[in-house]
Amino acid sequence: MKPAAYDLLERVRQQKPVVHHLTNWVTIYDCAQVIKTLGASPVMAHAKEEVGDMVQIASALVLNIGTLTIDFVEAMKIAAISANSRVIPVILDVCGAGATRLRDRKCEELLGAATVDVIKGNSSEIARVSGENVTTRGVDATKVGGNLMLLAQKLARQRDATVVATGEVDIVTDGKKTYLVKNGHSLMTRVVGTGCMATSVIGAFAAVEPDLSLAAACALACYGIAAELAAKKAAGPASFKNRLFDCLYSLDRETVDKMQKIEVVPSS
Amino acid sequence: MKPAAYDLLERVRQQKPVVHHLTNWVTIYDCAQVIKTLGASPVMAHAKEEVGDMVQIASALVLNIGTLTIDFVEAMKIAAISANSRVIPVILDVCGAGATRLRDRKCEELLGAATVDVIKGNSSEIARVSGENVTTRGVDATKVGGNLMLLAQKLARQRDATVVATGEVDIVTDGKKTYLVKNGHSLMTRVVGTGCMATSVIGAFAAVEPDLSLAAACALACYGIAAELAAKKAAGPASFKNRLFDCLYSLDRETVDKMQKIEVVPSS
Amino acid sequence: MKPAAYDLLERVRQQKPVVHHLTNWVTIYDCAQVIKTLGASPVMAHAKEEVGDMVQIASALVLNIGTLTIDFVEAMKIAAISANSRVIPVILDVCGAGATRLRDRKCEELLGAATVDVIKGNSSEIARVSGENVTTRGVDATKVGGNLMLLAQKLARQRDATVVATGEVDIVTDGKKTYLVKNGHSLMTRVVGTGCMATSVIGAFAAVEPDLSLAAACALACYGIAAELAAKKAAGPASFKNRLFDCLYSLDRETVDKMQKIEVVPSS
Repeated sequence: MKPAAYDLLERVRQQKPVVHHLTNWVTIYDCAQVIKTLGASPVMAHAKEEVGDMVQIASALVLNIGTLTIDFVEAMKIAAISANSRVIPVILDVCGAGATRLRDRKCEELLGAATVDVIKGNSSEIARVSGENVTTRGVDATKVGGNLMLLAQKLARQRDATVVATGEVDIVTDGKKTYLVKNGHSLMTRVVGTGCMATSVIGAFAAVEPDLSLAAACALACYGIAAELAAKKAAGPASFKNRLFDCLYSLDRETVDKMQKIEVVPSS
Repeated sequence: MKPAAYDLLERVRQQKPVVHHLTNWVTIYDCAQVIKTLGASPVMAHAKEEVGDMVQIASALVLNIGTLTIDFVEAMKIAAISANSRVIPVILDVCGAGATRLRDRKCEELLGAATVDVIKGNSSEIARVSGENVTTRGVDATKVGGNLMLLAQKLARQRDATVVATGEVDIVTDGKKTYLVKNGHSLMTRVVGTGCMATSVIGAFAAVEPDLSLAAACALACYGIAAELAAKKAAGPASFKNRLFDCLYSLDRETVDKMQKIEVVPSS
Repeated sequence: MKPAAYDLLERVRQQKPVVHHLTNWVTIYDCAQVIKTLGASPVMAHAKEEVGDMVQIASALVLNIGTLTIDFVEAMKIAAISANSRVIPVILDVCGAGATRLRDRKCEELLGAATVDVIKGNSSEIARVSGENVTTRGVDATKVGGNLMLLAQKLARQRDATVVATGEVDIVTDGKKTYLVKNGHSLMTRVVGTGCMATSVIGAFAAVEPDLSLAAACALACYGIAAELAAKKAAGPASFKNRLFDCLYSLDRETVDKMQKIEVVPSS
């Protein structure tokens, strides 16, 4: 059966889940705004003295190591453990994994300290977290040798998590079932924060759908469709980004049904 | 006599006050930009070693606990005490009050450590700070039982401050005089930071008008009028927000005089 | 020979240098986005445990003290020393210099701890760093007595650096050769972050051109031309800023060649 991405978007709009973020300082506004644009409710709080409490009013937890510090990662651990105790989904954006030893080590620590339900990154970040010796260029993706889908599936089984590798084609897999999402637009690579926002959108969808691979695939499809619509009259990265928010806000069933490109990969 | 909101806006444009912020990391850019859009001069500095000095060149101090940490609140206290010594107005946005015990405790501490001249929040935040047992949904308002205006007036008298409770109708009161401001647009609830920016605008107006309730009411009227104009051709939250800045920048006397909806509540 | 600003822009677009920032929390998104708009790759990382590593994948380092703390400046020193070891250019925006004693002291410390290749500020900041007794209004420029060009040249010789003083006319000097850049638009003063973004653009150009004064002059010309184009249909600060990004993204050789206003000041 074909996943109906719009059904989940509608559920987000109706249930208005609180999505708690510990994210990076570069894209924190956009992560909050994309949640609000979906009709849900963002909370950004990072003091280690309150994150455990804040998670108690949330329906999903989004972590992003883009501008990590040691203290910040400690607060993430507390938040993730609190989220585990409530059985709400934890989504980790391994932003910049591979760029420094600190990032690699802290990714490992986070994955060890609590159950992470969705691991999300671009191709080189996911390859790195899966144990490949990839060099990265900071936060932008580099070419990955080998088969990214197989790496993602291996990582998913190894970590018992849904793995999302974004790129021209997004890969979503829980190690058994794999989706390819072919929505999106190349202008997304020219706008800072489109990757972080994708993680937030996944967080909102994961808050309303227990099948997290389905949630992630539908999230990426809706977001990617908004990007395709936004690109149509964009004069550059700023007008594209503004239109991305406006188009996501206005997405309707007819448009999503017609444009969504989610393929189920036959299991091998 | 009817308050003339435009008179105060013009004073801000002419005097160009420096408004010092210790605000949250989500909306810090927008808080600075809304001050600049008014023709005033924003300063955002939070190191405890310099906030006391920085306040010395400012004409108002805006505090916002949206992404508080313990250290950050300590810096706020130093800044507020420095502001008190210069007798410049201190405006506190109790962003997220009620969401965690830390926030409630730190609000209490801030209100005890220095004179806060304007306490501002949405309906559930103000209810919480006034001592009601409200549960919140993070930073978005929830329905408040009881009479918000009476709660705001009680809080104003209790704290000897102007209290601002924003919502579909904004309430501004010093415990004796109460204004209702009916400007604004529902799209504001779909844009992250509209509440924080309102606090900054109040800060700029408070820098040029010693009657702080009048300043806050006029600030909210001008800001709300810009939002009403912005909503007219907005296609979604991003175009609305962009137009909000552009419309605020261009507000003229004729428009403000015609559109302002400030009501004085007869004292009981 | 007339500098050809477009040649350098094209080099940025082709080489796509990684530009590592330790910048302020207000404009961090815009600094990253302006780098991406140029086709280059921004990295924003500030943990003292990783900045040394991160610099190893970068081609330029941009420092900005806009929201400095003591720890943050320590991380800047580590990053700058790492950059010196790789002989990649270090650009320092002395944002807010003169506003507090802490800023003055930390500027001095940074300039002493590592080689800073480009010192950039507005007129009052540059005057202050050059030793003049200027009072500032936070981060906005104030009128500087004396001859700013002479002050900049003196500072350049004293620090053996390129000095950039932005304003209606930008001054770029290494103490011997001096450029005046007359591109730009007054609306830039109404948008928060235009100064910080200028520093980032200089960082990207400095990554591809070893003559840092030439790099800075060409960077400011391209950026200023984009601003001039952006101002043409802007309705206010938000639409201006959006158009600034879009216009910078689309700059072509014909436009830059026709519009660039870089003057070489005859050496005295």
